[in-house]
Order: sequence, then C-alpha cells, then structure tokens
Amino acid sequence: MKRDPRFDVLFEPVKIGPVTAPNRFFQVPHCNGMGHQYPSSMAEMRGVKAEGGWGVVNTEECEISHTSELSGAIESRLWDDDDIPVLRKMVDKIHAHGGLAGIEPAHLGAGAANNYSREVPMGPAARPIDLLEPVHARRMDKSDIKAFRKMHVDAAVRSKKAGFDIVYVYAGHDMTTLMHFLQSDRNDRTDEYGGSLENRVRLLREVIEDTKEAIGDTCAVAVRLAVDEMRGKSGISSDGEGREIVEMLAELPDLWDVNVSGWENDSATSRFSDEGFQTDYIRFVKQVTTKPVVGVGRFTSPDAMVSLIKNGVLDLIGAARPSIADPFLPKKIDEGRVEDIRECIGCNICVTGDFLSHPMRCTQNPTMGEEWRRGWHPERIAPKSADESVLIVGGGPSGLEAARALGQRGYYVTLAERSDTLGGRVHIESQLPGLNQWRRVADYRTYQISQMANVATYLNSSLSADQVLEFEADHIVLATGSAWDTTGIGRNNRRAITGFNSDTVMSVDAICAGATPVGPVVIFDDDYYYMAGVLAEKLRNEGHEVTYVTPAADVSHWTHNTMEQTRIQARLMEIGVRIIPLHNLATIHADSVDLACMYTDRIQRIQCGTLIPVAMRNPRQTLFAELQGRAKSVTLIGDCNAPGTIAAAVYAGHRFARELGEEAVEGVPFRRELPALSLD
Amino acid sequence: MKRDPRFDVLFEPVKIGPVTAPNRFFQVPHCNGMGHQYPSSMAEMRGVKAEGGWGVVNTEECEISHTSELSGAIESRLWDDDDIPVLRKMVDKIHAHGGLAGIEPAHLGAGAANNYSREVPMGPAARPIDLLEPVHARRMDKSDIKAFRKMHVDAAVRSKKAGFDIVYVYAGHDMTTLMHFLQSDRNDRTDEYGGSLENRVRLLREVIEDTKEAIGDTCAVAVRLAVDEMRGKSGISSDGEGREIVEMLAELPDLWDVNVSGWENDSATSRFSDEGFQTDYIRFVKQVTTKPVVGVGRFTSPDAMVSLIKNGVLDLIGAARPSIADPFLPKKIDEGRVEDIRECIGCNICVTGDFLSHPMRCTQNPTMGEEWRRGWHPERIAPKSADESVLIVGGGPSGLEAARALGQRGYYVTLAERSDTLGGRVHIESQLPGLNQWRRVADYRTYQISQMANVATYLNSSLSADQVLEFEADHIVLATGSAWDTTGIGRNNRRAITGFNSDTVMSVDAICAGATPVGPVVIFDDDYYYMAGVLAEKLRNEGHEVTYVTPAADVSHWTHNTMEQTRIQARLMEIGVRIIPLHNLATIHADSVDLACMYTDRIQRIQCGTLIPVAMRNPRQTLFAELQGRAKSVTLIGDCNAPGTIAAAVYAGHRFARELGEEAVEGVPFRRELPALSLD
Repeated sequence: MKRDPRFDVLFEPVKIGPVTAPNRFFQVPHCNGMGHQYPSSMAEMRGVKAEGGWGVVNTEECEISHTSELSGAIESRLWDDDDIPVLRKMVDKIHAHGGLAGIEPAHLGAGAANNYSREVPMGPAARPIDLLEPVHARRMDKSDIKAFRKMHVDAAVRSKKAGFDIVYVYAGHDMTTLMHFLQSDRNDRTDEYGGSLENRVRLLREVIEDTKEAIGDTCAVAVRLAVDEMRGKSGISSDGEGREIVEMLAELPDLWDVNVSGWENDSATSRFSDEGFQTDYIRFVKQVTTKPVVGVGRFTSPDAMVSLIKNGVLDLIGAARPSIADPFLPKKIDEGRVEDIRECIGCNICVTGDFLSHPMRCTQNPTMGEEWRRGWHPERIAPKSADESVLIVGGGPSGLEAARALGQRGYYVTLAERSDTLGGRVHIESQLPGLNQWRRVADYRTYQISQMANVATYLNSSLSADQVLEFEADHIVLATGSAWDTTGIGRNNRRAITGFNSDTVMSVDAICAGATPVGPVVIFDDDYYYMAGVLAEKLRNEGHEVTYVTPAADVSHWTHNTMEQTRIQARLMEIGVRIIPLHNLATIHADSVDLACMYTDRIQRIQCGTLIPVAMRNPRQTLFAELQGRAKSVTLIGDCNAPGTIAAAVYAGHRFARELGEEAVEGVPFRRELPALSLD
Repeated sequence: MKRDPRFDVLFEPVKIGPVTAPNRFFQVPHCNGMGHQYPSSMAEMRGVKAEGGWGVVNTEECEISHTSELSGAIESRLWDDDDIPVLRKMVDKIHAHGGLAGIEPAHLGAGAANNYSREVPMGPAARPIDLLEPVHARRMDKSDIKAFRKMHVDAAVRSKKAGFDIVYVYAGHDMTTLMHFLQSDRNDRTDEYGGSLENRVRLLREVIEDTKEAIGDTCAVAVRLAVDEMRGKSGISSDGEGREIVEMLAELPDLWDVNVSGWENDSATSRFSDEGFQTDYIRFVKQVTTKPVVGVGRFTSPDAMVSLIKNGVLDLIGAARPSIADPFLPKKIDEGRVEDIRECIGCNICVTGDFLSHPMRCTQNPTMGEEWRRGWHPERIAPKSADESVLIVGGGPSGLEAARALGQRGYYVTLAERSDTLGGRVHIESQLPGLNQWRRVADYRTYQISQMANVATYLNSSLSADQVLEFEADHIVLATGSAWDTTGIGRNNRRAITGFNSDTVMSVDAICAGATPVGPVVIFDDDYYYMAGVLAEKLRNEGHEVTYVTPAADVSHWTHNTMEQTRIQARLMEIGVRIIPLHNLATIHADSVDLACMYTDRIQRIQCGTLIPVAMRNPRQTLFAELQGRAKSVTLIGDCNAPGTIAAAVYAGHRFARELGEEAVEGVPFRRELPALSLD
C-alpha cells in the first residue's frame, strides 16, 4: 500500500545541527528496566524501533558517573570507558536501519541515593535527597562544579566514541542536577550559580557550551527541559521561568526537547490525560527559537501529528510510550497501514519495571523486552509448523492475541466468544471511569483478525465440552478468563470471611455488569491495583455513599508504580469517597461490616448495604476440567490459568502462539545476561 | 593470646551427616543484595567469613528455577548449569579456609512475582501472590509437583557439582512453596498433599528424601523450618504443628535449622527483641531429634553461646547478622580476644539492601560488601604510607572509626571530642527508647582506640580554628556531625515554614538533650526513618500528649525496609500517640499548627504547644569554613559532610582512613561486575 499524501510532512528530513533526522518520528529518551544490566536486550529493543521507522532513537537516562547512580532502578551507564561497548552495540543496531542514535547523559544529584556506589550525592544545596531514603546531598562547591562539568564533557566524548549522533543535556523531570540548579526553591545559593534566573541558568548554559565545544562538530546537542512543573508560580512554568529559560538559551542547543515535569506529569496515564495533553505547555517554544523542537503527548494519531507540524507547535513528533506499544508506528503510516497501528493505551505498565527493577513490559506489545532474549519481533513471526487448526474459547485479551498471532502464523483458527462482543475483561473494564482507551487492546486485535481469512470468529458462542470436542480442532486453547471472588479470601485473609455468603456481598463482576448496589457501599481492597479505586469512583459518581477500606496505607497502593496513586486518591477524596486505610475486613453482618485495625486488631463497625470484596479472582476452569482426558491438546492461557494484568494475558496468548508446534525448550527458555565472573 | 577454656565447647567439631563442621559457628543462609548480580562480591564476602572462623558458611536463598524468581531482589540462582561457576567460586573461597559450604535452594512459589522471567507462579492453591503485585499463582497439579521435585533434585545435583557440602531443603520464612504446603490456611488442597498435617508434610518429606537420594552420599541435607509463625494457633506454632512436623520428620534430615517466621520475626531488630529471643520457640527441637540442631538469636556473647550448647538447646550457633557485623567473631573467641568482637547492633540496615536491590551494608562493619570490589578486609588494613599525624575533631561514629582505622594503620592520631563522652550521635540516640544496643558502635571503637598507643583521645575539647592549627597535624579531619534543622525545610517543604522561628519550635537535638516540651506536642516527620517515631514514643512515655504528623501514608515509612514499620506503628498506637498521616506542615501559629492534606491541600488546625520538625539535618561546617585556606589537608567526613545513616558515617570514617596517603583513583574507585555482552 501507499502512504497517504496527507502524512508526507511526517517523513520530511529534519536538520538537527550537524546531523539530519531522516523523518520526524523521534523516540525520546525513556527508561526500560534493561539498561546496564540487560544491555543486549536494550540494544535490540532500540534497534527494532529504528527498523520500525523511528528516525531518531534515544537511550534512557544514562548515568555519567558512579557518584550519581540510581540502583536498584536499572538505567544506562557511562561511568567510564568500560561502558562504551554496550552503548556502541545499541548505536550499531540503530544505524543499521538508518536512524540517528541519541543519548541522554544524566547527573541525578539529589535525585539519587547512590546505594550501590555509596558516594555522597551532591546538588545545589545541602538538603535531603528526593527519594525517601536516609540520605542528604551535600552542597556543591566550586571544585564540585568543575568536576560536574568535566563529567558531562567526559560523557559527551564517550558518547561520540560510541557513535552517537545526538547528545543530550538533561534538565528535566525534576530529576537532574541541572534542573535542580534552575529551581528557585531548591537552589538557595548565594554565589553566581544561585539567586537570579540568569545565575540559576548558568550551569545549564555552561554544560551546553562545554558539550558543544567537546563534540558539537559532528554531534547534535539537544536540551531536554521541563518547561512547566505543573505547580503554578511555585515552580518553573511555561508562562514564567520556563519560557524565560528557553528565551535565554534559545539558539544555543541544536534541538529543544521540551515537556512537563515531574515524570508523573510527563507520563500521565490515559485515565488522567488525553492525547496531546502537553501541547498547551510547550506551544510557546517554537515562538522563541529557530531550532527544531520535539515534544510528546502520547501521540498515536497521524492526523494529530500532522496538525502539530503544520500549526508550528513541533518539528519532531516525540514519543516514548507509543513507540513501546508499536515500534513500527512510523512504518505503518509510511506504508498506508494506519489501521494496523497498535496504539498505546496509556496504562503505564511499562513504567512499573523501572520502579520494580525489571525489564519493561507493555500491555499492547507482548514482544517488548523479548526482542533479544527470545528473538521475538513485534511484526514478524514464524509461519506455522504444521497444517493444524486451533479452537480458542474466549475472546478476551489472551484469546484475541492468541488468535491474532496464530492467524499471522497461518494456522486455521476458530475463536469462540460467549458474549456478543470481543474483548472480554478489556471490553468490560474499558467502560469504567477513565479506562476508555484500554479498549484499544481489543480494537487492534479485532481488526487484525477481521482481515485474516484463516481466522473465524463466533460471538454468542458459549461452548460445552462436547461442543468443543465436536470442532475436532488439533489444539484447544482455553482463554475463559477469571471471576472475581466473593469470599474475601486474598492476601490478608486466607479463609473465607464470616458472613461472605450473605446477600450483602456483591461481586466486582456484578457491578461491572450493571448491578445496582444497596447503599451504603463498602469496597474492600485487598487487590491494590486499580479495580477497587475505579469502582469507588464509578459508584460514587452514580450517587452512592461509598466507603473504601484497605489493609494498605493508601488507596490503590500498587498504582504508585504506574505513577497514578496521588491522582487516584485525590479524585476519590474530591468526590467524597470515605477512605479507611490500614484496616482488614473481619466480619460481614446483615447491615454492617466489622473492620480490624492492621496494627491493633481493634474492631470498628461501619454500616454496609453492599460489600464488594476486591481481593482475588478465580480462574474459570470448569471447561478445562470437563475436557481432561478427552482431547490431546488443551491449554489454559491468561486469566483462566492465573489471573493477572491485561499485559500478562496478552503475553500469555502471544507466547502460546509463538510456541505452538515449536520444540519445547528444556530449562530456561530465553537467553540470559550474566555478569562476567572475575577470576579472583 | 589464648582461648578461654570455658569456650572450648564452641570449637568442637560437629558431625552433620556425611560431613563434619570444624566448629559450632554456623553462618545460616542470609540475603546480601549481591547474589547473581555481584557474584564475585558475594563469593569474597563469604570467603572472608570462613577465614574468620565460621565453620559453616551458607549462601542466601538460591532460586532453583526461572519459574520462581524474585527480581528486583538480588538472590543467588541455580537456574541451570550456567550458574554453577559463580557458586563454585564461593565454595572454593570457603574451602580455602577449611569451612563447609552450604546452599539453600529455594522455590518461592506464591512468594515471587517472576517479573523478570514472566512465568506464572505456582503454589498449593490458586491465590494472589504474597507480594503486593497484580499476580496470582496457579494451583500446582500432579505434573507440577513432579516438575517441582525434579527442580529440587536438579538443584541438589548442581550444588554438589559446585562443591557444596551441605544442601538445604527450605521451608521457612513464610516464603517458600514447601512452607506454603505446610500451612493449613494456604493449602486448601483435597488431594494427598492437602488436608491432614501428614498430607501437608508430604511434599516436604518427598523433597528431603529426593535430595538425600540424589546427593546424600557425600552432602549433608539440612532442613530449614519455621517452627513458629508468631500468630498463635492460626499458624504453625512450636507447641502445635511446628513441633509435630519436626516429630514426623525427626531423623530424616542430617541437620535441623529452625527459626521463627516470617522474616521480620526471624530478623527482629534490637529495638524490639533481645539476644536469644528465639530460644523459647526452638528449644523443643533437640528433644525430638538426635540430629544436630542450629538456631539463631542475634548471638554475640560467647557465654550465651556456651550456655545454649551446654543446656542442650543447640548444637550449632547460627548467625546471620552477627556474622555480618563481625566476620571474625569465631576467631576472636578462639584467640582469647572476646573484647575485640564487633557486636551486631540489631539495626537491620543490612536488610534494606534486599528491599532496595543493592549490595548489603552494615553499620558496624564498613568493609561489608567491599571485600572484593575494593579489596577491603574487615581485620587487615595497609600500614600507613607516611609517618604523619592526623587530628580528628569529633568523636561520633565517623570520627571514632577514622581514629580506629588510622590508628590501626599506625598513624599518630589525636581525637578531640567536645563533650565528656565519645560516641556523638550514637551516644545520644542510644539513650532513646529501644536503641540501647546502638551504643555498641561507640563501645567497640572506644575500646579499640584505648588499646592503641598512637591514638590520643581528648574529651571536653571544643576546638577553635586556631587551636586546631596549633596541633600542626599533617591532616585535619572534621567529623563534627550535624544539627537537626528547625525551619521545616525538607523533602516536602523547600522553603522555611511560616512561623518556624516561633518559640513553639523545638529541635530534635534539644529534645535529645533533655529539654522538656510544652504540651501538646506535635512531631512532624518529613524524615521517614526512625527518629520521629522514637521521639513520639519517648515523649508519650514521659506523659506528653503527642501527635505525629507525616506526609507519608504511615509512620516511620522507611522502616518498611528494616522490617520494623508494623511494630513501630503498633507501639505508637498502643501507647496513645495520635497519628495524622498524609499531611504536610503548612503554618506554625503560637499555639497551633496548620496541616495540609497531601491530596486536597485542605487545611486542618491542631493544637500545638511544642512543634518538633524532623525533616532535615544541617551539616556542622563552621570550623571547616574557618579553616579554609589555612591548612593543607582538611577533610569533612560523616554527617558534617552530608547527614545520613550511622552506617554511612562509619563508612566515611573508614574510607578516609583507607585512602589517606594512597594514590587517588581516577574514575570508578572499585571493581565492577558487568554483564558479558552478547555479540548479536
């Protein structure tokens, strides 16, 4: 197919200082949980993006010194020359596909605890570090500033040696020393690096100049700047110092990469932000510089991208999450296959790896992080190994992805869905407040299989074991999902709660299906992810009196890892949900529940018309049990095997499809990256 | 010197199945944050313990399969043969010193999220995993149980190949699949592996038998069992099923390693437990088995150890933390140098590395984790490189350790302390509730320098800059500590709080010095470690009305990492401290303070006679400033450089002593353990 001419502008080359980006698709630096620990995984993942058409592909933040390191978060490192080969590998992978490779050297200062190196952090002021660790940073003196500038120059020179085309100077995300110097309430210095904005900008200016001087002949120098901290006049703002800083340095860098800060604002989820949510904050930048400007906003729509270029908002379309969800997004636009784009759903499961010290995953893209270690490519998959048929029961995320990937391999696939809509839990959950974009998980796959002659889909098809067997499929795949449990059993209660079988108890599934609870409603969250918080929001919005009870100390506790926790709890408080943290569910009575304090076991009784336990899900395995011994190949995938995230369900479906007919691997089924063992 | 004959019994060999421990000192398995990621560091650390006289030295828990892995926590791995060389290196280091090497193969089941391998966890039941992650375990079927047993056999065989003498079967800490099968409220199975205790013990029995069969000819098989979960009859208890399990399996293993569970109970801090705190729970074991028994209890007193042996409680003195604080504890007893033992203070800073994914550190032993990467030995240090003198100002943890280590190197050291007691913050803080054992940091060092002719100590010596210079020392070291700030500035407030200079505000230091607050007292905790919680306890115990306010969701938030948080908050609630979480300090009035909700900014006003901000410490640098340009070598160490933990202060003092006179290292000053880079 051919590219829609409307999108031609996206494929124009863009000159960035001494280098030229082949098009306007720009993967901004983003963490990935691979970095220095899984360098081959990281390199291959970046290379695949270049292959997919991203004209510029950057590293994540790259620590420039052992004196400023983020372990256990796994970032890139350029501590010394030993780190060059790892990054050169990444550069080579990107260059092989004609992309430019960029690197983001970072000095975290008071943003890092240095738990591995055990060095004392330093920053503009003598203050506690930002992380909640018992560590203070020391105030940098003149010799520290000199050393700091040298670190940046050394990193730039090493970056050039590694082959990078673009070298960042990073003052963003409330996370780096260069940004901390800019902030009037962090920088309390009385020397020439503190006080006036001119003084606070001095170090940034010097590092840009140093970097240009060091490697500017052949490398472009980009500045990543947070132009708005979303805290009004207390911080840097796009109508205040953010704009002034860009004005002061306007023509100095070769490229401006501008965004909002901190990270939780820059990478806001779809539950709390729409595509293009940063545009109003960064719009001014092109008015004050002639240099190219890149910005982000979870862009997946080529029309929106074109409009940003044509309206003079951006020169390059920045993306982190959309490039994770679909490394081939540019190529699909280029090839006139816009409807094949696997759009980011804005769930931030990708971000959780950075907090939990493991390689990134993606709900939409099950191959993310698997490119090197399993050899999984986001677009290519081996053809079927035998002329076989597969019956998939259940059209949720796991069943859909299995159908899509098996269909891509050429298998004859029958997908049977008991309801009248594909999507399963994705279809259901995307109707809950804020989760609308999650339906993209189903939309993408539904469209893909609709284009495959070898995949037949049947709706309203609830199959018995006999009916399943009548298909005489070579392989039966059960993707029957899970049902929310109502006994109260979960992490904090290993036996059913007394009273669980009373009429007061209503399941999450019933609520999602539209059942009307009797007030007052009590939601008991022993799950910690989004569901209990979303239900509280939904039911409160519908006018119910809602009390949210959890053994955790705060609401939707695990969403700290998706950077949503603050927003969720604030929203629940704003709409008037009563929150009782640090309490377990003890007993269920006819019109009340007893809650037990997690510390003292003291009981408090609260009124309760409907109790909704959000604690555990039971895999639906009835059909599996009935098929035992009656079919040669029956496999459980996704939530009916073990309930988990939507990402895990998609991954399970994809993995089944990849492995069908392949020889089973004995032992570890992926390549590892082991530390070289010293001889002494 | 010669060993005290009273302690001879500790040096008797102990037969453990087919192997013989050279003495009764037994380093039980313990995590260390090095594991598979820093294998040379781990190996050298274990080797140093064998050198120090520990007759048996074990690994940490060692994952036996990629299907059960704990990343980001950094444990050992025996996923396949590729992991053998790493562990063989450790074994060789231990054998070189005549110790036995033990390994603890572990299948974590529902205790692991498998975030790296992305495999579905499995356990006795289909339940959410214990970690607060959106992951469920699936119920193991018969083929899973078969595979599980094979994993253990494979791990045992690989352990033998690596040269281990002792192979564990691990059913402890509420953390492993084998323990989960034992627990009646986790194991809801209706097959022969569930129901009766006999059935629930079946899998443990099978794995012990399998392991003996596989490697029992030359390796001892140990069982680590939690005999009490500290939850009464709801769980395994030493007068219930814990005892019954040992009775059922009494003669099956070659060694019983018994303790209480979970980990937070097994490794309780000195704030909440005394030496020997587990003895009453494990005492029964030797009554029901003839096999040797090892147990722990933060033992550092050789008299206590002897008594445990003589009274038939234990055959082997188990230790994790005491062996970290002093790897040479056995040798010091052997050599009649009991007073040289560096006793564990029970602070659990060692444990934090496991939660935060970095190598372990120790307050008492600054060389912990540095044995390989920096070549630091806990007992040996290079002699001085020049015949020079050092003046140290300040006898806190940093100054004391610098004096001790410089003294050991042979430098002429003068230590000047302004107060009448050595110890600095350690002396002060150890007088706070529960922290008494922390004074061991000062006690050990005070005694050591008292034995050194080349170290002179002066108390009541507050020195001016002129007086410092009059010493004409070749090197001046300032270890002047830090002072708690009273402006309210800290993580959540980057500018002084309005009203901070009112009479209402009292500093942490004033309280520690014995000042009497006017009630009601408000403690504002923007520090998150122990101090605010300890002060609340102290002042409440003294009869004050105390309100504890913190922006965090719970009390002493960072102590989740020392496994103390639950106990701290429970204690504060029990004694009647009012707790207001999730609020920031907004304004200080004459008799009240305004608190702002972290989510809504809504203000609430509470009465306040005395406000104690626990938010930030200011390094004491006045003397440093006065000495600028007047002396050739002036160095800040410890809290006066950057306030941090006591461990960081000791480390800074030690590092200064190590590096004095040594050539400065350009770049990274320690050896790294980089992943081998794949060529493709």
